[in-house]
Amino acid sequence: MLRAPDPATLQRLKAIVGPAGLVPDPAEVEPYLHEWRNRWVGETPLLLCPGTPAEVGAIVRVCHDQHIGLVPQGGNTGLVGGQIPRPGHGEILVSLRRLNRIRNVDAVDGSITAEAGCTLAAVQAAASEVDRLFPLSLAAEGTCQIGGNLSTNAGGVHVLRYGNARDLVLGLEVVTPDGNLWNGLRALRKDNTGYDLKHLFLGAEGTLGIITAAVLKLYPRHRHVETIFASVPTLEAAVQLLAYARDATADAVLAFELIGRTALEFVTRHMPGCTDPLPRPSPWYILCDLSAGRGLAEEAIAGAINAGLISDAVLASGAAQSASLWRLRESISEAQKPEGTSIKHDISVPVSRIPALVERVLAAAPQVIPGIRPVPFGHVGDGNLHFNFTQPVGMDGKAFLARGEDLHLVVHDLTCAEGGSISAEHGIGLAKREEVQRYKSTVEIGLMRAIKHAIDPVGIMNPGKGVV
Amino acid sequence: MLRAPDPATLQRLKAIVGPAGLVPDPAEVEPYLHEWRNRWVGETPLLLCPGTPAEVGAIVRVCHDQHIGLVPQGGNTGLVGGQIPRPGHGEILVSLRRLNRIRNVDAVDGSITAEAGCTLAAVQAAASEVDRLFPLSLAAEGTCQIGGNLSTNAGGVHVLRYGNARDLVLGLEVVTPDGNLWNGLRALRKDNTGYDLKHLFLGAEGTLGIITAAVLKLYPRHRHVETIFASVPTLEAAVQLLAYARDATADAVLAFELIGRTALEFVTRHMPGCTDPLPRPSPWYILCDLSAGRGLAEEAIAGAINAGLISDAVLASGAAQSASLWRLRESISEAQKPEGTSIKHDISVPVSRIPALVERVLAAAPQVIPGIRPVPFGHVGDGNLHFNFTQPVGMDGKAFLARGEDLHLVVHDLTCAEGGSISAEHGIGLAKREEVQRYKSTVEIGLMRAIKHAIDPVGIMNPGKGVV
Repeated sequence: MLRAPDPATLQRLKAIVGPAGLVPDPAEVEPYLHEWRNRWVGETPLLLCPGTPAEVGAIVRVCHDQHIGLVPQGGNTGLVGGQIPRPGHGEILVSLRRLNRIRNVDAVDGSITAEAGCTLAAVQAAASEVDRLFPLSLAAEGTCQIGGNLSTNAGGVHVLRYGNARDLVLGLEVVTPDGNLWNGLRALRKDNTGYDLKHLFLGAEGTLGIITAAVLKLYPRHRHVETIFASVPTLEAAVQLLAYARDATADAVLAFELIGRTALEFVTRHMPGCTDPLPRPSPWYILCDLSAGRGLAEEAIAGAINAGLISDAVLASGAAQSASLWRLRESISEAQKPEGTSIKHDISVPVSRIPALVERVLAAAPQVIPGIRPVPFGHVGDGNLHFNFTQPVGMDGKAFLARGEDLHLVVHDLTCAEGGSISAEHGIGLAKREEVQRYKSTVEIGLMRAIKHAIDPVGIMNPGKGVV
Repeated sequence: MLRAPDPATLQRLKAIVGPAGLVPDPAEVEPYLHEWRNRWVGETPLLLCPGTPAEVGAIVRVCHDQHIGLVPQGGNTGLVGGQIPRPGHGEILVSLRRLNRIRNVDAVDGSITAEAGCTLAAVQAAASEVDRLFPLSLAAEGTCQIGGNLSTNAGGVHVLRYGNARDLVLGLEVVTPDGNLWNGLRALRKDNTGYDLKHLFLGAEGTLGIITAAVLKLYPRHRHVETIFASVPTLEAAVQLLAYARDATADAVLAFELIGRTALEFVTRHMPGCTDPLPRPSPWYILCDLSAGRGLAEEAIAGAINAGLISDAVLASGAAQSASLWRLRESISEAQKPEGTSIKHDISVPVSRIPALVERVLAAAPQVIPGIRPVPFGHVGDGNLHFNFTQPVGMDGKAFLARGEDLHLVVHDLTCAEGGSISAEHGIGLAKREEVQRYKSTVEIGLMRAIKHAIDPVGIMNPGKGVV
């Protein structure tokens, strides 16, 4: 059983980090306790900002010995509440923000060693300085921290080409739940000496240890990127187009995003400067980045039109038009707000199952809430849909939100029936902890429980978060 | 404690698989017990060839209940003895060869579901039939099985572009050590619902369970591949050339192999039809495949010559010349044999550390065995060297081999001092179980032991293999 820390323990913990690692003013602690959309508001007897991995280890050791829960926190941009200490549990909050050194960048190895508290933008910038690309890219990149990105196995728009956050990691440094420091900071492309421990901590949402630093892969920067905005007649055509485009360009597709007509209408209606790039409306659109020359992009478009996979297309004339096409995609969530409240899903299925899933969800959702307005869009190249719904026109927002659980159940049941996942990139956190039990087999939950118990037998690491 | 099976248990195990899964003639069992170079010869009271994952589960359940060790085996091409049941231990040998169905291929998803006993070549062929590429490629691909490839996290020449075997996996089906079947056969590119269990079993050498099937990633086939054989003045130039080539070709480098002068001399001396492609000798050569058009390949060569990174180069005129250039690389091990016995290493370091490592090993090895002939070559794009040594001219082969441990110690100490691994792609198995203890931290071994104990508390899965 975990317990709240007593005053003497709080003093010991404070002494570990010293004045530089303390936030004495409760008003300054507040932002760490609020999930940014205010869905979760946390509580903690103590916020600690350790300055070194050794300090993190010392904090964890005290918590381990005293059976005190602790919650690691990065940039506090997570969407499922994993970073928030639960009210009434006396959990220590450990912000990694002061562990923000880039320890090493090596253009020849194609690697960078960054501490957990570096913002994603800082990692990208350090790579850029040696003419390399760190391809993870998220809306929150100026605020989110790489430790959080790795602990949540973040996704984004470049997963298609570069994989999820876990695929960008060569090595890790982790404070384990007994307070030891595991130095797995290897810059190796191949290493078959035992179990791959790094994959255990990546995506574990801080429930198995605290990532303090990582060796990340860097790539060549793109010399040419061509952006295409295309209307596609059907979802079937959209997924065929992906296969066609990868094939026709020697696998140069960097991003492949789906936008439904409703999403485009919301964006052009509410976002200043956003206009429909094509003359005729279409039920679906694809926004695609190619790391290819202009000639190849033009050939691919012509071939896809001939094959009936796209109806019309714009090839961006340059960086400015590319940015304005991307703004259409990136403004969707924002553009939903003036239309009322939203219920959202972060789901994935095999790419080929997207048409069937969307069709079934579009048929089922109005049965749950008549008049509901579906706004599906997402990283269709990864089979990942952000299946959002806007409230019916004129419905009370709260009444709409009150039906959220019912809608989730329908959407998630249909997703799992197509072999899918109810959390493609956001994780489990607090948000989906109960619900995920419905979709996991006993064998799978048993394996996860065995691992949790083996690595964190006292259960101090981010208690109450994740699957087990 | 494990025990040998009694006659009644052997009967129960035989009944599970029935006559189709038994090999009654001891002479036919022999090939399963011999590691192919005869470094390890095993012993078993029973060889079982189950025909379904359910039969595998039933076998494991009996072994679990009776505390009997079992050894999973694929194509028996492993290089570290992981597939061989140890003499005197009464371990059941389970061949996966009858689990050899391709369950599904989907060109749109870019995925294939293959059972463990499919040969790698069969998986490649099934992908090819739908105009897709399964990029794992190994010398043993006609014999080795995908279950073994995944359990050992196999490497090969295309790791640079596509990653190791583990990076090609979307989902797994595994019989766990209690005989349950974990169905993790998901064809999802993104799934953040809990710990990533598949990475636990991948590369675990059968010590945590038996992989019975996998969903694997497929890629577009290459329309153009250009092969370049280049002489490079120094190793420093070789690693710079890799960064240069990736940059100049929009990351189209598929393979980047190093060949030392001695290796080339052995090959041209002993392998019929192999000749030095270049007029002047060079200390080092690079063999590189680019998935790019001829124009880009020519530009890259010209640029690299201008930058002083290569001295001379041949761009293969077509498939025939490409194959003959690749024969130079692939014949190295064979060409060493007429020169006497060899001592080999499968090591990796960060790419930038290759020049320093090679220099130090070349200086140190003759201190251990005067007159020794180093034959370094390998997947330098992954930092992975096969640092082979041929015996001194005139030395007794057995006397040379007797010094193997001393040489390993020197090479592996130097490798680890450069932040490297003593087993880049072959694994631990029986071969490196003792030695790896020298290079792993207590924390790392402790974590591995905790995992092994959590998943396989009785210790029946491939006992005595791997790190813990």
